[in-house]
Amino acid sequence: MPDPALRTGFVSLVSAGPGDPELLTLKAVRRLAEAQVVLYDDLASGAVLDHAAPEAQLIPVGKRAGRPSARQEHVNQLLVQHAEAGLRVVRLKSGDAGIFGRLEEELIALTAAGIPFEIVPGVSSASAAAAAAGIPLTRRLTARRLQFVTGADVTGRLPADINWAAIADPGVTTVIFMGQRSFPELVRGLREHGLSGDTPALFAESVGHPHQRLIRTTIDELARMMEKAEVSQPGLILYGPLAFDATPQIG
Amino acid sequence: MPDPALRTGFVSLVSAGPGDPELLTLKAVRRLAEAQVVLYDDLASGAVLDHAAPEAQLIPVGKRAGRPSARQEHVNQLLVQHAEAGLRVVRLKSGDAGIFGRLEEELIALTAAGIPFEIVPGVSSASAAAAAAGIPLTRRLTARRLQFVTGADVTGRLPADINWAAIADPGVTTVIFMGQRSFPELVRGLREHGLSGDTPALFAESVGHPHQRLIRTTIDELARMMEKAEVSQPGLILYGPLAFDATPQIG
Ligand SMILES: C[S@@+](CC[C@H](N)C(=O)[O-])C[C@H]1O[C@@H](n2cnc3c(N)ncnc32)[C@H](O)[C@@H]1O
Ligand SMILES: C[S@@+](CC[C@H](N)C(=O)[O-])C[C@H]1O[C@@H](n2cnc3c(N)ncnc32)[C@H](O)[C@@H]1O
Repeated sequence: MPDPALRTGFVSLVSAGPGDPELLTLKAVRRLAEAQVVLYDDLASGAVLDHAAPEAQLIPVGKRAGRPSARQEHVNQLLVQHAEAGLRVVRLKSGDAGIFGRLEEELIALTAAGIPFEIVPGVSSASAAAAAAGIPLTRRLTARRLQFVTGADVTGRLPADINWAAIADPGVTTVIFMGQRSFPELVRGLREHGLSGDTPALFAESVGHPHQRLIRTTIDELARMMEKAEVSQPGLILYGPLAFDATPQIG
Repeated sequence: MPDPALRTGFVSLVSAGPGDPELLTLKAVRRLAEAQVVLYDDLASGAVLDHAAPEAQLIPVGKRAGRPSARQEHVNQLLVQHAEAGLRVVRLKSGDAGIFGRLEEELIALTAAGIPFEIVPGVSSASAAAAAAGIPLTRRLTARRLQFVTGADVTGRLPADINWAAIADPGVTTVIFMGQRSFPELVRGLREHGLSGDTPALFAESVGHPHQRLIRTTIDELARMMEKAEVSQPGLILYGPLAFDATPQIG
């Protein structure tokens, strides 16, 4: 079977993992090495891009590249244009590309333009955060469900349609993406829906990056921290019956 | 910083991904190449083991290796024994090691024995299944929560403590692990709790293996299929407002 990535006019939507270049998959490394154009997000940049060929065109399309409002449409256009020019395009997305990454918008654009594509799955920052903290994401008797939620809707605020019964469940590990700003408000809701303020919480900032930071605390304590915190780095919040006791303390 | 995996008496709990050796991370490949002993599960075997050194001792510890009941305790003992003998041990676990993999039991055993360890995160079969089917796991407006649940408790039956409000939520992508056998019963519960029988469902069997199979259907239809199905391969069931329309049909 010929390698699909060697076809011209082809887009690989590639998961970059949390940032540590060692957490790229072999497939992601290969696709990067073969790409003629790489479109990358702010969080899928840095050392992971060293795997691209020296002659590849590297195009930043993250928020820092400007044009925040028209951004997604602009990315879609760039993807289609480069593929229609007959190039092998890699679209590099942070973590696992399928999780809170606007993948659908790009799939629709590619499908509408009739451009062949593939999705290369990867390591989510949620898996990397738990691994870095030395805890499992699920527990056999106490955390038999694992849920990923977003702390920000399109306007940047806490989504209005939260299923409180689901996210205030004490027997679940919950991972909040993009949730630092709204966490104090979220915790007020969780408390109103019966979740204890002493529920263990992990704050995991810049996982897999040189300045990684891990804080073990409780949801109440973390809400207080977040009231005052400046959000400049990507961070995840995990809460639930986290297995903090099972593993050695972290620094 | 010296590479921790080159320390003796050290255990790397390594995520093997869904089975496709191309979906191993660079870190997993390195740990496998450096290991003196590799303890591996049924689902973390096959081609991924080709990355181990020829002189490494490969020890199967999955269900197929026998002793189902004492299995976990036996694995814990083997891990501790080999590390105490001063060896570099890799414990290879399918998908992402932190998700439904009994990781906690092994962490407790290692901690109790004072053995240093690390966890290498990886690609969950859930991410690989969605990627193979060409769909995102989350959708910006319609699936802002993603949840992973198990269809089998320790006795192999549907867990008794299911949060139905959480898993019958129509605005969520749900991924069921180890759920083929109990799916007909689960769907009866979902219907009783208001979820439509027409809810899109994806059955993803042996993702990343040569005999991978993907079926797009509805929860009602899949429940009927599962009544009669023989479960011999690992499979995932995804249901919710899956983005089947956005992407080309699969084979
Ligand atoms: C647009 S979402 C993309 C998530 C990504 N697809 C994944 O699977 O990790 C971006 C959010 O993911 C989280 N995130 C991504 N990379 C991270 C990292 N290295 N450390 C901590 N959080 C991270 C943060 O919550 C960030 O705001
Ligand atoms: C003990 S759990 C381990 C899950 C793993 N840690 C992960 O993240 O994918 C085993 C279950 O995972 C699912 N699974 C694992 N590998 C799979 C694959 N390659 N294809 C489909 N399902 C898989 C099946 O539901 C299987 O019963």
